[in-house]
Amino acid sequence: MICLLTALVVVFSAFISSVPPTVYCRYEPNWDSLDKRPLPLWYDEVKFGIFIHWGVFSVPAFGSEWFWYSWRHNKAKAYVDFMKKNYPPGFTYADFASQFTAEFYDPDHWADIFEASGAKYIVLTSKHHEGFTNWPSNVSFNWNSMQVGPKRDLVGELATAIRKKKDIHFGLYHSLFEWFNPLYLKDKANNFTTRYFPVDKSIPELYEIVNSYKPEVIWSDGDAGDWRYWKSPEFIAWLYNDSPVKDTVVTNDRWGGVSCKHGDFWTCHDRFNPGHVLPHKWENCMTIDRGSWGYRRNTNLNTYLNTGELISTLVETVSCGGNLLMNVGPTHDGRIIPIFEERLRQVGQWLKVNGEAIYGTKPWSHQNDTVTKHVWYTSKKNSAGSIDVYAITLEWPTTAVMQLGAVTATTQTQVTLLGYPKPIKYRQDAKGLLIGIPFIPINAMPCEWGWTFKLTNLKNQYNY
Amino acid sequence: MICLLTALVVVFSAFISSVPPTVYCRYEPNWDSLDKRPLPLWYDEVKFGIFIHWGVFSVPAFGSEWFWYSWRHNKAKAYVDFMKKNYPPGFTYADFASQFTAEFYDPDHWADIFEASGAKYIVLTSKHHEGFTNWPSNVSFNWNSMQVGPKRDLVGELATAIRKKKDIHFGLYHSLFEWFNPLYLKDKANNFTTRYFPVDKSIPELYEIVNSYKPEVIWSDGDAGDWRYWKSPEFIAWLYNDSPVKDTVVTNDRWGGVSCKHGDFWTCHDRFNPGHVLPHKWENCMTIDRGSWGYRRNTNLNTYLNTGELISTLVETVSCGGNLLMNVGPTHDGRIIPIFEERLRQVGQWLKVNGEAIYGTKPWSHQNDTVTKHVWYTSKKNSAGSIDVYAITLEWPTTAVMQLGAVTATTQTQVTLLGYPKPIKYRQDAKGLLIGIPFIPINAMPCEWGWTFKLTNLKNQYNY
Amino acid sequence: MICLLTALVVVFSAFISSVPPTVYCRYEPNWDSLDKRPLPLWYDEVKFGIFIHWGVFSVPAFGSEWFWYSWRHNKAKAYVDFMKKNYPPGFTYADFASQFTAEFYDPDHWADIFEASGAKYIVLTSKHHEGFTNWPSNVSFNWNSMQVGPKRDLVGELATAIRKKKDIHFGLYHSLFEWFNPLYLKDKANNFTTRYFPVDKSIPELYEIVNSYKPEVIWSDGDAGDWRYWKSPEFIAWLYNDSPVKDTVVTNDRWGGVSCKHGDFWTCHDRFNPGHVLPHKWENCMTIDRGSWGYRRNTNLNTYLNTGELISTLVETVSCGGNLLMNVGPTHDGRIIPIFEERLRQVGQWLKVNGEAIYGTKPWSHQNDTVTKHVWYTSKKNSAGSIDVYAITLEWPTTAVMQLGAVTATTQTQVTLLGYPKPIKYRQDAKGLLIGIPFIPINAMPCEWGWTFKLTNLKNQYNY
Amino acid sequence: MICLLTALVVVFSAFISSVPPTVYCRYEPNWDSLDKRPLPLWYDEVKFGIFIHWGVFSVPAFGSEWFWYSWRHNKAKAYVDFMKKNYPPGFTYADFASQFTAEFYDPDHWADIFEASGAKYIVLTSKHHEGFTNWPSNVSFNWNSMQVGPKRDLVGELATAIRKKKDIHFGLYHSLFEWFNPLYLKDKANNFTTRYFPVDKSIPELYEIVNSYKPEVIWSDGDAGDWRYWKSPEFIAWLYNDSPVKDTVVTNDRWGGVSCKHGDFWTCHDRFNPGHVLPHKWENCMTIDRGSWGYRRNTNLNTYLNTGELISTLVETVSCGGNLLMNVGPTHDGRIIPIFEERLRQVGQWLKVNGEAIYGTKPWSHQNDTVTKHVWYTSKKNSAGSIDVYAITLEWPTTAVMQLGAVTATTQTQVTLLGYPKPIKYRQDAKGLLIGIPFIPINAMPCEWGWTFKLTNLKNQYNY
Repeated sequence: MICLLTALVVVFSAFISSVPPTVYCRYEPNWDSLDKRPLPLWYDEVKFGIFIHWGVFSVPAFGSEWFWYSWRHNKAKAYVDFMKKNYPPGFTYADFASQFTAEFYDPDHWADIFEASGAKYIVLTSKHHEGFTNWPSNVSFNWNSMQVGPKRDLVGELATAIRKKKDIHFGLYHSLFEWFNPLYLKDKANNFTTRYFPVDKSIPELYEIVNSYKPEVIWSDGDAGDWRYWKSPEFIAWLYNDSPVKDTVVTNDRWGGVSCKHGDFWTCHDRFNPGHVLPHKWENCMTIDRGSWGYRRNTNLNTYLNTGELISTLVETVSCGGNLLMNVGPTHDGRIIPIFEERLRQVGQWLKVNGEAIYGTKPWSHQNDTVTKHVWYTSKKNSAGSIDVYAITLEWPTTAVMQLGAVTATTQTQVTLLGYPKPIKYRQDAKGLLIGIPFIPINAMPCEWGWTFKLTNLKNQYNY
Repeated sequence: MICLLTALVVVFSAFISSVPPTVYCRYEPNWDSLDKRPLPLWYDEVKFGIFIHWGVFSVPAFGSEWFWYSWRHNKAKAYVDFMKKNYPPGFTYADFASQFTAEFYDPDHWADIFEASGAKYIVLTSKHHEGFTNWPSNVSFNWNSMQVGPKRDLVGELATAIRKKKDIHFGLYHSLFEWFNPLYLKDKANNFTTRYFPVDKSIPELYEIVNSYKPEVIWSDGDAGDWRYWKSPEFIAWLYNDSPVKDTVVTNDRWGGVSCKHGDFWTCHDRFNPGHVLPHKWENCMTIDRGSWGYRRNTNLNTYLNTGELISTLVETVSCGGNLLMNVGPTHDGRIIPIFEERLRQVGQWLKVNGEAIYGTKPWSHQNDTVTKHVWYTSKKNSAGSIDVYAITLEWPTTAVMQLGAVTATTQTQVTLLGYPKPIKYRQDAKGLLIGIPFIPINAMPCEWGWTFKLTNLKNQYNY
Repeated sequence: MICLLTALVVVFSAFISSVPPTVYCRYEPNWDSLDKRPLPLWYDEVKFGIFIHWGVFSVPAFGSEWFWYSWRHNKAKAYVDFMKKNYPPGFTYADFASQFTAEFYDPDHWADIFEASGAKYIVLTSKHHEGFTNWPSNVSFNWNSMQVGPKRDLVGELATAIRKKKDIHFGLYHSLFEWFNPLYLKDKANNFTTRYFPVDKSIPELYEIVNSYKPEVIWSDGDAGDWRYWKSPEFIAWLYNDSPVKDTVVTNDRWGGVSCKHGDFWTCHDRFNPGHVLPHKWENCMTIDRGSWGYRRNTNLNTYLNTGELISTLVETVSCGGNLLMNVGPTHDGRIIPIFEERLRQVGQWLKVNGEAIYGTKPWSHQNDTVTKHVWYTSKKNSAGSIDVYAITLEWPTTAVMQLGAVTATTQTQVTLLGYPKPIKYRQDAKGLLIGIPFIPINAMPCEWGWTFKLTNLKNQYNY
Repeated sequence: MICLLTALVVVFSAFISSVPPTVYCRYEPNWDSLDKRPLPLWYDEVKFGIFIHWGVFSVPAFGSEWFWYSWRHNKAKAYVDFMKKNYPPGFTYADFASQFTAEFYDPDHWADIFEASGAKYIVLTSKHHEGFTNWPSNVSFNWNSMQVGPKRDLVGELATAIRKKKDIHFGLYHSLFEWFNPLYLKDKANNFTTRYFPVDKSIPELYEIVNSYKPEVIWSDGDAGDWRYWKSPEFIAWLYNDSPVKDTVVTNDRWGGVSCKHGDFWTCHDRFNPGHVLPHKWENCMTIDRGSWGYRRNTNLNTYLNTGELISTLVETVSCGGNLLMNVGPTHDGRIIPIFEERLRQVGQWLKVNGEAIYGTKPWSHQNDTVTKHVWYTSKKNSAGSIDVYAITLEWPTTAVMQLGAVTATTQTQVTLLGYPKPIKYRQDAKGLLIGIPFIPINAMPCEWGWTFKLTNLKNQYNY
């Protein structure tokens, strides 16, 4: 890292927190240097994003987005039978592409749904392991969404729609490797001593999407093999130093054997939800259909997480310092199916009431309560400089009093229930704070699925 | 009507109510005679059924099941544009049929969902106005589900699956007329002085489905023109006298200009919900997607009735003596989409708690309360011979007391809340019954969407 | 037959031969009466027609137009394998229809080719055994060329195009039975004691095509079963008495067990070519691809008859009093493939030179020569009232003299070679006529494939 | 060129003419060096090859193999209309690929036809300007015949089939540029200062096809731009020095601005037929359908050259020292249509009789006769060391004597007609050789379309 005027800048940025971390440094293409980059502020504040897995796999919409792999590599019986029963002999994966029609794809409508969900960033698969690019790539001739299937720039259209919303960041997922690209297979056969594939395909794609669509998240995946093969640090250094999004972009940790080690935020593994605070920003990516990231048709209602489960996951994740990236898989014709839309809108309803306890918060000294189960904490410095603590209970108490063991009130402490107009009575005793649960008829509850008790001026303050 | 041993039989059937109305009569093919037939008992008792609109219209899944009509007859812009944008020039309605694939059609799974919904009968479109028969009809050559599209007997497979459930009746919808059958158009051009179409097509179809699948509901529709053209009474007389379902079958009132006049039950018009008791059994057929009977893709989440609205409709309908026939439109590939499944299962959850107030009930002297809004009544003779009254409130009171103006308690009166273990306190005063609303935390409520107070031994009994 | 003014009319028509046989009779629906109808003059004069087999079978274009039967009824391995290899499981015959696109169908271009071939009538399959009607039939809902596949009235368009040519008659083939129509199968299962199929389908079709397209040939086929089942005489009586083509229409003998017995002309069996004169007008229907009437792709060049073989067949057929109906099978996209077109045009080139020996001729006393092989005779009364005899040799003599044993010259006899300007020398001796074969360099020959020596004023005249 | 033992080798190869030119040199990647390579002997001897244009363009089969260009680049009305009328909006060129089915592709049958035609080499399009590779290329992911469309290695299968024939050489056509490959367009936009496209796509393809299929002809095309952009000399040097076909391969002159200047044989432009001898080996590539190289459906019979025209072109070309490469375009389903097959087999019949005057011949002092039109000469050294001259007349003389002005007989001269058993009489006078044309009846002619008089021991000998 070669920095200029570092001191000045750091001082500057510390005062005006809404300014992105404009540190006038140049990062070198090695992990030591790259790791020194501060996390752009926006990413930690937004907490909640939407992940979108969309591609040719959305056409068979069977099993999961790993359809090709199950069918052609694993030769799993269910997949082989599905193909035998429904397609002509010799039908290839590429043949699905012409049925990726996207005729109902309305990116503004998607953006409305995402906005209503309360999400503050979205991450779309620009290319999954199948290699099909959802934009007209220069290096994916006749295997991209403009020449085959949708005949549209899926990435570009969503970028435009999202940017009409004032408060949502646009990000892109990209798979480094591809299951069956012959150049990749050739490199693999050569034990990765050759680099035909990254040179001709994957890395040029990354430059293309950054330059064309200016994503603020590069969500890398498919990092089979080593970062030396991909030359990931070189790309990331460019991303940090010279790309058009150098000031605000964040990227994850899937760059070739560095998962949970390097990157602006760690994803470690899918559905990563450690249950405790980590020393580094992390993200929990998970999906509403618990069995698939891509849209699939052969599933049952009970594979969909219900809204209560989604709220729980969000609360736990944020409480432990993570972001939640909640996935939906659109259909081959471009729709987000109603059950997904309903879930997202219900999360949004919940956030309308409880967003104060989520957005812009930081983990507190405790993540969950020591006495009462299903109570998770977040916290935030208020304008007076003291810390407000949010105790979010995922089950409405059936008893008249809820005891919080991790909390000690002061005489200035006030307790409120977000969305409920009246103050909440409490009492502090040796075992903790005892909150009097009000009797609220079902029709008058401020929300469903989780309820936030805001606690001010506690004795146990916390230094971030 | 030519009856034998009428007296004996009527006495007999009055005593043993579970026996179907085996009246040894022969009905004559005229409305006077047909109207004399007693309604088979089962139909009034079941209250709640599922309607299923499935056909070639499920392939475009655009607008509604009247797709052809909007596109080709009305030439509505949205439809014409949809076709222009997505299909080759000259694409005909018939061309959709090959895409009616039904590869995920699992009638046992459907039956599971229907059973879970609490429905006690189902009615499937055997043929809609498009003329495509969902069974291998002798008179619909190459325009039926066995030769084109699914390559399966959709009707027969569902009949089999439904009959594995001990408690669900199987019924079939059938459209008399067809939008664009040349024989029908010829008859129409002849001002219906010729009868090529009913003779060669529609009436033979009705005999086929009754003989092959023994449906207990014949839900006729598309009765453009006069019953003299269709010779409906002749068919119904056969249905009542000689068909394999003569003892249990019920049919509706759409047989050519006799709507709301003749037939075992009246449907009058779609979504018929008069809000008061009628002098004849009736049915409210409606659909979860409020804008379409067939599955459609171009819709918004807010067109789907939510579970609360569905429960409300069910309660109001049953309170006024009707049956509710709630429609879902499966997809071209044979699925009931998750949002429909979730709605149906939630109705079923509600009926698990409140079914006592629905199944086998009769309208009470009042349908809804005179004082408190959103309270509807049903009633049922209990084993002691007195009438239990069910006051179903669609909104949980936010006050401590709910006043029922239509009700007068006696000293024997007991009040309970279905699904709630403790007795409910009440007081009778001049203005009515005052029910003390218990404080139940949200997590402990017996159900959502509607709550039934069961009232026994009221002063105001009622003679059915 | 009930005739009026018969004598007058017969006298009249004998004098003016170009007038059609306007006999003012009414034929009764029995074979005795129908057999009394005189053959309309045009049919015997034209000698050469084109048969066209076109239908859904042109889509697989595999094996033959009996594709369905080989595949589904016989389950012949080659067909089953073809389907397995190239189509999805469950693909039905009806699924082919949407690929019957006919986008290159240019009936005027077809008419040009037919005219260039020298054919004077054409016979198009209006419906083959598959039941698909090449016109928008009232009784073939969604299984006709207007609603599925071509989306055009194939029959009507060709009728119009053919009628722009001044000299070609338009005819239609029609199959009575259908392989897999359920109504036919029902009648068959009932041992033809019921008549659902002819009443609802086949006979209405015949009326439709006659009334709509006014064909001058009704080429019936698929006459499985008995004429009493089809009630063929009733239809033919209408055709002769009251149809719009009653004066000029001809029909064949495939009407249910009457082949080679009744009908205006006999076809007996496919490729009927008896080699001698019959006591009744007959027709030799055959096809250029010797293995299929419908277009097929899986064939070899040597299955196509070459032009020499076609000319030979024409000459032999006409010599024995038959008409030749030469078949071509157009492609699914509406083309007559170049090899067929070339054959037809070459036949036309030959007829340009030798048509005098074909059109309007009658069989002579001998059909082929008694001494020299490959010589066939036709004859025609010339304007002077004597008979011209045409000796057509299918092989050009390699000797200087050709001996005709069946012929005796007079002193007035002249010998010419059609298309050759100079007179031909000859000598009569006891063994016959000895014709001096001129030495003509290959480039100066009047034609290829067959050569006509015209012989006038022979001693052996002949009374027709 | 760096040569070893050159002298020895040249001596060696001069004596044993059947040995390929094994000159132990290494060619340098510049035209001067490459031009020094001797032409492998086989190529000049074979004279006649078959060109095969097959690709995705065979699917629309409309207009020509330049379909894309006419449609998308030129926006020619006929093409735009064709697409509008027959395909859905938004249909792309890539969408055609799935219809490139090749189900009737039988390379052994093709090889039989080619063998019967008398051709001694074949050249198949491995990739045309559309970029679709007819083999499973590493650098054409999902745009090749193994992954899309045929699902077969079209190139490899034909190579194998051809090599079963003892006497036919296998060659491959390859287009350097591609109409719409974004990498090419990028280089073009950069005024060819970048070389992304040749580096990543075209040149790797050439190495692939040579290494995989060992073609003995590399028929380069699509050489838009300069050889410096393509670095053609580098590839050709490898081809000559190190490739597995270095001893026998020949390549043409379309390598970037060097047409008619460099390369083993010159093609100059399509249908190049200069009418006189050139100082360098050349080839006349032409096509039976005079309007298209790829198969097209929208054409007329008269666009097909007839066999006489094909023989004329062959004779003229060979007489002037060229090879004839006669093109056929197979259909999308893998067939060589009958009219092409018939033409090829007729050329083969002609070559059976006249091949002596074609194969292994050399141009003579005169190419065509000075007096009689339509007479072309070839020549060949006979085993006695003198030159036999072949006078091929494309029109059979209609006079008794044919005068050859270019020829002077000696007393040893003999004249024969190839395929005719008897000697031909002649007389020499001042104006030339006078050949007595025998009277041969049409049925006894040795062949059609062209006739060869072989003249031995002429006075005017010729030094090659």
